[in-house]
This record gives sequence, structure tokens and C-alpha cells, in this order.
Amino acid sequence: MSRRISDDQFDGEGITSLSSMQAPPDKFPTATARHGHVVRRPQKQKMWTGFATVFKELFFPDEPLRSFKDQPRSKKFLLGLQAVFPILGWGREYNLSKFKSDLIAGVTIASLSVPQDIAYAKLANMPPQYALYTSFITPLIYTILGTSRDIAIGPVAVVSLLLGSLLQKEYDPVNEEADYVRLAFTATFFAGITQAALGFFRLGFFVDFLSHAATVGFMAGAAITIMLQQLKGFLGIRKFTNKTDIVSVMTSVFHNVHHGWNWQTIVIGASFLVFLLVCKYIGKKNKKFFWIVVFSPLISVILSTFFVYITHADRHGVQIVGHIKKGINQSSVHKLFLSGPNLAKGFRIGVISGVIALVEAIAIGRAFAARKDYRVDGNKEMIALGTMNIVGSMTSCFVSTGSFSRSAVNYAAGCQTSVSNVVLSVILLLTLELITPLFKYIPNAILASIIISAVISLIDVEAMILLWKIDKLDFIACMGAFFGVVFRSVEIGLLIAVCISFAKILLQVTRPRTVLLGNLPGTIIYRNIQQYAEAVKVPGVLIIRVDSSIYFSNSNYVGESILRWLTEEEEQNKKKNLPRIRYVIVDMSPVADIDTSGIHAFDNLYKALQKRDVQLALANPRPIVIEKIHASNFVDVIGEDKLFLTVADAVHATVPKVEEP
Amino acid sequence: MSRRISDDQFDGEGITSLSSMQAPPDKFPTATARHGHVVRRPQKQKMWTGFATVFKELFFPDEPLRSFKDQPRSKKFLLGLQAVFPILGWGREYNLSKFKSDLIAGVTIASLSVPQDIAYAKLANMPPQYALYTSFITPLIYTILGTSRDIAIGPVAVVSLLLGSLLQKEYDPVNEEADYVRLAFTATFFAGITQAALGFFRLGFFVDFLSHAATVGFMAGAAITIMLQQLKGFLGIRKFTNKTDIVSVMTSVFHNVHHGWNWQTIVIGASFLVFLLVCKYIGKKNKKFFWIVVFSPLISVILSTFFVYITHADRHGVQIVGHIKKGINQSSVHKLFLSGPNLAKGFRIGVISGVIALVEAIAIGRAFAARKDYRVDGNKEMIALGTMNIVGSMTSCFVSTGSFSRSAVNYAAGCQTSVSNVVLSVILLLTLELITPLFKYIPNAILASIIISAVISLIDVEAMILLWKIDKLDFIACMGAFFGVVFRSVEIGLLIAVCISFAKILLQVTRPRTVLLGNLPGTIIYRNIQQYAEAVKVPGVLIIRVDSSIYFSNSNYVGESILRWLTEEEEQNKKKNLPRIRYVIVDMSPVADIDTSGIHAFDNLYKALQKRDVQLALANPRPIVIEKIHASNFVDVIGEDKLFLTVADAVHATVPKVEEP
Repeated sequence: MSRRISDDQFDGEGITSLSSMQAPPDKFPTATARHGHVVRRPQKQKMWTGFATVFKELFFPDEPLRSFKDQPRSKKFLLGLQAVFPILGWGREYNLSKFKSDLIAGVTIASLSVPQDIAYAKLANMPPQYALYTSFITPLIYTILGTSRDIAIGPVAVVSLLLGSLLQKEYDPVNEEADYVRLAFTATFFAGITQAALGFFRLGFFVDFLSHAATVGFMAGAAITIMLQQLKGFLGIRKFTNKTDIVSVMTSVFHNVHHGWNWQTIVIGASFLVFLLVCKYIGKKNKKFFWIVVFSPLISVILSTFFVYITHADRHGVQIVGHIKKGINQSSVHKLFLSGPNLAKGFRIGVISGVIALVEAIAIGRAFAARKDYRVDGNKEMIALGTMNIVGSMTSCFVSTGSFSRSAVNYAAGCQTSVSNVVLSVILLLTLELITPLFKYIPNAILASIIISAVISLIDVEAMILLWKIDKLDFIACMGAFFGVVFRSVEIGLLIAVCISFAKILLQVTRPRTVLLGNLPGTIIYRNIQQYAEAVKVPGVLIIRVDSSIYFSNSNYVGESILRWLTEEEEQNKKKNLPRIRYVIVDMSPVADIDTSGIHAFDNLYKALQKRDVQLALANPRPIVIEKIHASNFVDVIGEDKLFLTVADAVHATVPKVEEP
Repeated sequence: MSRRISDDQFDGEGITSLSSMQAPPDKFPTATARHGHVVRRPQKQKMWTGFATVFKELFFPDEPLRSFKDQPRSKKFLLGLQAVFPILGWGREYNLSKFKSDLIAGVTIASLSVPQDIAYAKLANMPPQYALYTSFITPLIYTILGTSRDIAIGPVAVVSLLLGSLLQKEYDPVNEEADYVRLAFTATFFAGITQAALGFFRLGFFVDFLSHAATVGFMAGAAITIMLQQLKGFLGIRKFTNKTDIVSVMTSVFHNVHHGWNWQTIVIGASFLVFLLVCKYIGKKNKKFFWIVVFSPLISVILSTFFVYITHADRHGVQIVGHIKKGINQSSVHKLFLSGPNLAKGFRIGVISGVIALVEAIAIGRAFAARKDYRVDGNKEMIALGTMNIVGSMTSCFVSTGSFSRSAVNYAAGCQTSVSNVVLSVILLLTLELITPLFKYIPNAILASIIISAVISLIDVEAMILLWKIDKLDFIACMGAFFGVVFRSVEIGLLIAVCISFAKILLQVTRPRTVLLGNLPGTIIYRNIQQYAEAVKVPGVLIIRVDSSIYFSNSNYVGESILRWLTEEEEQNKKKNLPRIRYVIVDMSPVADIDTSGIHAFDNLYKALQKRDVQLALANPRPIVIEKIHASNFVDVIGEDKLFLTVADAVHATVPKVEEP
């Protein structure tokens, strides 16, 4: 019952001539030969199609135009508008019950945002009101353009630290405050441009190059760095180093031990830190009490401010936030540096902090989308984040993104859509207009405590242990990033993480496994003999599986590995007086692609095998591999009858010949 | 007949519980279930072993210590000596008949080398004697340490051009000749150090990162650049640009059209170029006449020199080589710049030209080794080339490597071992001691003609066409390198080539294919339904194969792709009123490895499928994948009974359930 393939599917010639096959010996049966499935050359134009596919999958894996197909023009226009403004999509299904949930979630994150914002502004060395401005404007823009329903937008610890540490290398945040703030806006502008451009040109996949392992290490390192920075506020030190590495910070701390530490500050900071950590612990133990975690910072701020106000502790060396400007954001368009050397500086700082902000936001978006099973559109997210930072840079905001901690709270408080961000924004508006003067007596130590208790959860020891368990190289990447951040700087840590991640990819591509296959007795299945002890080798035949695509970087290695297997097996066979190997069957199942160097390597392998009087056969080549074997005319070298549908077919075709005397 | 795996092989628990399996329906049979092969968790320590394997395969894929095993101590010492000095290995089998062949080959390559050397010295802007020195010393060292039998050692066109163009940016080769030559030696020294270090630290695999495609483009571009440079000698122009890009050179050439061109020079150059190209053509047409190709440069030099000498053409503006210093190399140890800014310059130039020299030599070594079926040891080759350049730098030589054209001649002339290089060296010694004064009247134009006819074969149009046919991305890499070299500079071309090569690897790793599998009727085989039109989908089951290892850079994409397939298929099923999909089977056969991000992606996929009430099963996971699924506890999430030996087994286990109402 030979089954022929219709001509509209394939126009090449059939490769395995089944009629020439002999009856299968019982030992190594084959099912396909009986049914006559053949390996055929696919249609010619497949190659350009393949190229187009690669292009499409790289830039448009999500098929953004899919829903536009076969729609009337008016519908297409509507869909187009929805594509640009996702709010028009989900907004139409919005209702009162959703709003109730969003209102509660919004109030919750706002109560967490206000104290955190003031603290994070300190990390960025910015006056506190700018963080409040940021939490007022950027969530609004995100709601219109973003696709995540759970993300909470605002300044975050790691990005603020990164921004602050990069900016203070250019200007002194105290003595050159005007220039410092202008450069911050410029950096924010370019962070936004970078993010939006990556999204617009659909280069979102770049974010994937920063591996999970590297991110875990980077975040943990950043958390340590941030905590070290808090020693300034926590110990009440006035003269503090500008550097962020652990050695400089500890030197600076112990230099100040005799005349720089302020015991009142330490008492306030330490007692509230204990309070915050206990609340956190309770919230972790019992999910019902997560409200305690949420409101503990606000409670701490209120209590400590009241305490400082009535005891006049600020006159005893307890540093306080001081006057915060009342009122909403002013335009900062004219403050952007759009020429001169500051343009280049702002650009560089903006690109780095923009990318880190992206990584954090995308990771959060994906994590929560997976929990609720909806899709976050990576490229649209980037455009949303980018636009919000561009707008932010013109309205006195600094870099804003999705926050791990606040998004988790948003989710736990039951948010339904990003309207919770609008609620947050409205509360921030009221805060700015009405109550900022009350913030004057907030002690810096309490902000340090809030930051420490917030970033401590960025140190994900469990994830690190898991990395160690699952993949040692991932663990090395993680540690590289961690120690890079802690001992050098945030940028160096980042660089190390990216380099190790890339090196890992290259390593795996450069040294693919080649394994020996054996037959699982009684079946037509061939498996790795190291994995399946019952698999038996076929006498006189060497079956090798190549576990990767074959490219220039591994082609020589693959060819040499196969020859090494052959040499080893022949040595063993000689010792055991087994018949010599006459056939090498390469299982090409995992070989998704092959390039010119790969074809060359097979050509060389074929020649080397010829010299040893050994035949070469390929099993289960993919369409693209078959096409390239034809295009390069290697098929004329190896012979069309040496391409088989399965390893079993190849063995079936060779065994009778091998068993001849 | 359930076959159990012995405990010394595997200590984990079995995964597929076969006893619970129902009888296979006839439509989708399975052979393994009948025979009871099971997927088991491999031994625990496999992971460290795996790590060690990666390390071993990266640095010691050739198992250099293999032959030392189980040998007595004296034998080990001898083998060790042979490993360091390969000549002790092949030298013991050397005999008179081999020497005869080597003698003929040596004389042949010497007759080609002398005129080429003088010409290539011009490319490097070095006085001619240095190239002769190089061809005298470096082949000797190579013979002792090298493992290739066919390579011919000496200065080569591309490396000489690269060296010359990099050096003349630092010093003027005419007015600052002493410093220029010293920097050349310093660069040669560091080229040697780089090469030897790469070999010593077994980093030879770096050479593989420069893909074949990039090399083809780079070589062709370099050939064009070299030919353009010859317009100076060919047209008799005295004032010529220092730049190598096509625009600068052509501008310079046409600037000189009225008062710079010398018609006598052009006549001599053109007539001999025609002669050389005709000889080349004849030699190519008929392999018997390859001698004509070999001796044509020498004949041209003799004839043209004689012609110039008797006609006093040098007095009519025909430029000649001029006086060449008689005698052998002097020590140049004291001339190396080993401190100051010249050290850094020499280092940079040395690293670049050393790597390019390596790439050329390794490619040649491999190509000829494949033809004669012997192995060239990449790392030993690097140490040999490095040592020879280090020694060379101390004996007035510049960067030397294996030459494409001379090695081909060496091979064609029937060389047996690298003793032909010793013969070459001896002839060069005699040349230096006796006949250099005769070289005075060699016209520069003839050298230009020799270079042009030599490098023209570096433009491998056939290889480019093949690249276009086989792989469009390879072709783009090739063209990038080519235009980079021609329009900018050799280094830029190199950089473009390396970047495109890396980008290609990353692209393929970032966007692996995911394909839909169907059953080949009557078999237990599942294949890509786009490749095999007769493959049929299993109702209610979606079978997807992931065509790559799953890493951080593609894990999200893979997870999303599988969900996209599910959505598409469900839409189609709805239209056709087919049963909804209840099972997703992921064929993990091509997944050679998975990292933490990959496990996360599967975890997310599992959650998303749960939301849609779809079950997930994995078919044919590799040992390392199984181990990681266990290490991460993902096995507890997905369930141990969801890992199957084959797709057929997985279908077999699910189909009865799917077909229930």
C-alpha cells in the first residue's frame, strides 16, 4: 500500500527508493518501509519563504495584523485605533463592579506609593516632589496605552539608584541641583525614546537577552547596594561617599563612626525597621494580613513624623525631609538638554536606565499575565512605557516603570484593570495639592527603613538555590551579576550579566552533544544508549544523533566528533572481535538548520569516511536541511538513496548488506 | 515482557506507569508501550558530570591525554615529547622516497615564494629582504612543531596588507622606516603571543566564530583592496594615498592621471599580467600544466629584470625594487617595543593580524587534512604558528602564516610532509646569501602583476553563488564583510563579518521553529505536517515539536508559540466542528538542553493550559531535561505520568480519554 504524495505539495524527486529495499530482517524492523512513506525534496521557493518566516518570527511573532484580516474598512479603522490605544478595547467592557475593585486596589497602592516615592527620590538624589510628580503623571499615560492589567506604575528602587549613581558622576546633586535635575529629565527623555523605539521597531526580543538568572543576580546585588546606601540616612551620617560599591561604602561608614553617627536617628530608624519587618513577616505567613504590609510604611511615616514634630528631634541632629514644594508638576520641556555634551551624557544614562526599567516592567507584566492567563504585548508595552517616560520628562518626572512590590500589592488587592493606576494618580494629585507641607518633618531614617524593608525581598535566595539546582551556568551568571553590582557598580554588574548570558548561548551552540543511539529491542525506536541501558547497538552500524543545528561555530566540531565516535567504536569492536563498522547513520532529527559551513563539514566527513570505506546515511532530515543538501549539490555526493525517513529505515536498508560476509 | 532497567544505571523512579495504560486503539498504535520501555530519571550526579562534560568538550574535545592511558612511564614521556614536538612522531617514519617528493615540492614552492615574498613585503610597506628573512626562518620552526603536512609557510597577501595598513597609521614607512620596522616586529611578536596563547589555553574554538561565509567575503574584499593598492606600482604612480578604501584609491589614481602615470611601466606590467593570467588559465584548464602556473612568476621576474637591465628602463621612470641587503637575518630582539605607547599599538595590531593569520592557516590545514584524511590539531597548530612568529619577531621577520596559493602548489607538487618547508627554507638561505644583488632591477610593476594574479583567486565567486543558494543569511554576512573591506577598511570588514556571524547565531537561538506534528498513517511515527502531506492530526490532541534547546532568549517565545498554535487550531476546529483540543503534547526530541528560564516558561505554559482545561504532556525528554524538570520540582506540577518515551506513547495514553464523549 504505497502512499504517494500529491504533486501540488511536493515537486521534487523522491529520495528513498523503497522498491529497492529488501525485506526487513526481524531483528531491526521498520514500520515506515512497509507503508512506503518517503523523504522528498520540498518545493523550491521554500527558501525565500523560510527567510521571510525568520523575519516574521523575529519581528512579528504575534501576527499583529491577524485580526484585521477579512474585516470591513470601518472595522479595520476601529481595530487600528484599539491597537494603538488598548484602553479602547478593554474600556468598552468596563463596568461599576470592576471599578469598585480598581478603586480599592488604587487606594491601597497609593498608600504604599507616597512614602516609597519620597524614599526613592532620595535614591535618585532628586528633591522628593519629583517622585510624587512622577507617580501622578506616568500612571495616567500608561492606562491609555498599556496592555497589562496588574502593573503598578511609578519610580522604583533599582532604576532610581541606577539613575542617581549615573547622574551624580556628572553633576553634584546638592551644589549643582539645577543642572542635575535638568540632566535627570534629559535622561528620562532618552529612556523613553529608547523604550518606545525598541517597541516601535519591534526589537522587544532584546529584552529576552537579559536572562532570568542574570536578572535575579542583578536585582539581589542592587538590593544590597541600595541597603548600603541607606546606612547614610539610617545612621544619620552627613558626609557620605558618592560611590556605590561595598568597599567604599563600608569605609565611609566606619570613617564616620566617632563623629558622624547620630544615636537618636538610629533609634528611630531601627525601631521602625523592626516594625516594618515584623509586619512583612506576618503578611508573608498569612496572606489575609497582607493589608498590614501595605499600610505599615504609611503608619510608620505618620507615627515617626508626629514623634519628630512633638519632640523637636530635628534639632538634635535627626535629619528630616524638609520643605516639599506644594502643587502639581510644572512643564520641564525647556529644561531638557537637547544639544551639547549634556545631550550625549543624558542619552547614555537614559539608554541604560531605560533598558533596565523595561526589563523590570516586562518581567512583571508577563508574570501577572501568566497568572490570569491574558497576553501582555511586549512591543506595545515598550511603546506605552516609552511614551509615558517621554511625557514624564516634559512634566518634571524622572524614569518611571512597573514596580515589583506595588504591582504585587495591586494584584493582591484585587485590581481588575489599569484603572487602579488612575486612582493612584488622582490620590497623588490630591496629595500634591493638599498635604505635602505635612511631609516636612518626615525623618530621613524612616525613609531608609522603608527602602530597606522594600528592597529586601528583591534578594530572592530561593530563586538562587533553584538556579544552583537546575543549571550551574545559570548560577554562575547570577553570581557574576550579583558580585559585579555589589563590588563594582550597577553598570559593571549589568555588563557582566549580559556577557555571561551571551557566552552561555555561544557555548551551547559551539559544543553541541553528539550521542550514540541504540535500538530499543522489539521496537523501531532508537535512543541514546547512555539514557536507555536496554538500547542495543546495531552490529556494523554506528548511529549518531547530532543534538543541535549545525552552524559555522560547531560544524568542524560536529564532523570531528562523529569521526571520534567511529574511531572509539572501531577500537572497541576490534577488542571484542565484532564486525567492523561499515555504515554511519547520522540522525538529523534535532538539526533544525544547517548553514554552508555545516554542509562543508558533512562533505569533509563524507570524504573521510570514504577513505575508511564507510558509508554515510542521514535519517530524518528536516525540509530546510533537505533543501540545502540539494542546493549545495551535496546530494549528488552522498547519493539520493542515503536520506531516510527514520533511523529504523536507514538501518533496515543497510543491515542486510552489513550482514553479508 | 516488561523490561526493567538495572539499578546501577538509573536510581530514580520510573515515570510512565505502563500498567495503568489502556489497550492501544488500532488507529494510533504504539510499539514501546507493548514492550514496556520507560522514561526514567537519570542518576543524580549526572549534573556535575554534565558540567564537566561541557568543560571537557569545550577545551579538550580531542582528548589529548587519551593515548597516554595505561602506558608505562617511559612511553608516557616519549608520547609527551611527541605531543610537544610532532616531528618526533612522523619523523621516525620518514624515508628517502618521502624526501624525494618533499624536495621537488620544496623547490617548487621556493620558486613561487621568492617573487611573491618581495611583492608581499611591498604590501606590508617593509623593505623586501624582511619577507625573504621570514620565508627562511618561520618554515623551519613550523616543521618542528606543526601538524599539517601540506601547508606552505611564509608571508601572505592578506595579512601583509592588514599589517601594512595598520602600521602606516602609526608611522610613515618611508620617513620613519626604523620605527615602522620596529613596530612591525613588535606586532609580529604579539601576533605570535596571541596565537600561542589561544592554543595553550585551548581557546582554538574562537577561530570557528569567524564563519566560512564571512571568511569568503573578507578574503574577496581583501583581494580587491590588494589589487587596488597595486595600481600604484602598475601605473607607476609616485604619490599615492595611504588609505585602502576604494573611494580614496580611485580618487588618488585619477588625480594622477595626467602627470603621474608612466606608460613604460604600464606596458611592462600589463604584458606580464596577461602572461601570468594566461598561464593561470592554462593551468586551471589542464591540471598537468600546473607547473606553468608555478614557474610563470619566476619567469616573469627574470625576463622583466633582464629587460629593464638592458634597456635602462629605470632611467625612464620605471620604478625598480632597488638594492636588497645581502646576507641572512640579524637579531631583532632589541628592536621590540616592550614598553611605552608603542607596546599598546604593537599589541593591538598584533592581535588583529595574528587572529587573521590563524584563521587562514587553520582553514588551509583543515582543507588539506580532509583531502588526505589525517587530523590537524587546531590547538597545536596555534602553538606552532605562535612560536614561529615569536621566534620570527626576534629574527627580523614579520607575520607569517600558511598561504592558500603556495599550499595548493605544495600539495599539487606531491609534498609528503612539512619537510618541503625545510627545503624552501634552505633555498631562501641560498638566495639571501648569493643572489639578492640580482634582484635590484626587478621592476615594481612586475611585482604588482604577480600580486594581482595571485590574489585574484581569493575572489571565490563560485563560493559566493553557493552561499546565495544555500543560505541567504550566510550570503548577507559574506557581502557585509566584502563591502566593509572594500569601502571602509580591512578592520571594519572584519568587524562586520564577526558581528553578522554572531547575530546569526543569536537570531537562530532566539527564534526556534515550533512545528505541528501528525501521524504517518499505519506507523507510530509523527512528523511535521508541512513536510509530510500524508501526516494526519490526532483529533483532540495538539502535537508540537520545539526545534531547539530552550534558553532564556527563546523561552518566552516558545511558550507563546505553543499557545498561538493552540489558539489557531481551536479556531479551525470550531469552524470544522471538530472536537476541542484537550491535550497538548510537546515533542522534546530536539530539546538538547533547558535552563531555568525554560522551566519557568513551561511552568507558565502549564498554568495557561490549566486555565483552558487542557492537559500538557512531554514526549522524549533528554536525560538532562528530565533531570532539570526534577531538580526544579516542575515534575510535581506537571505530574510524573506526563513524561513519555515517544509521541506515540503520549498519544496512546491520551486518545482513549479524548475519545470519551
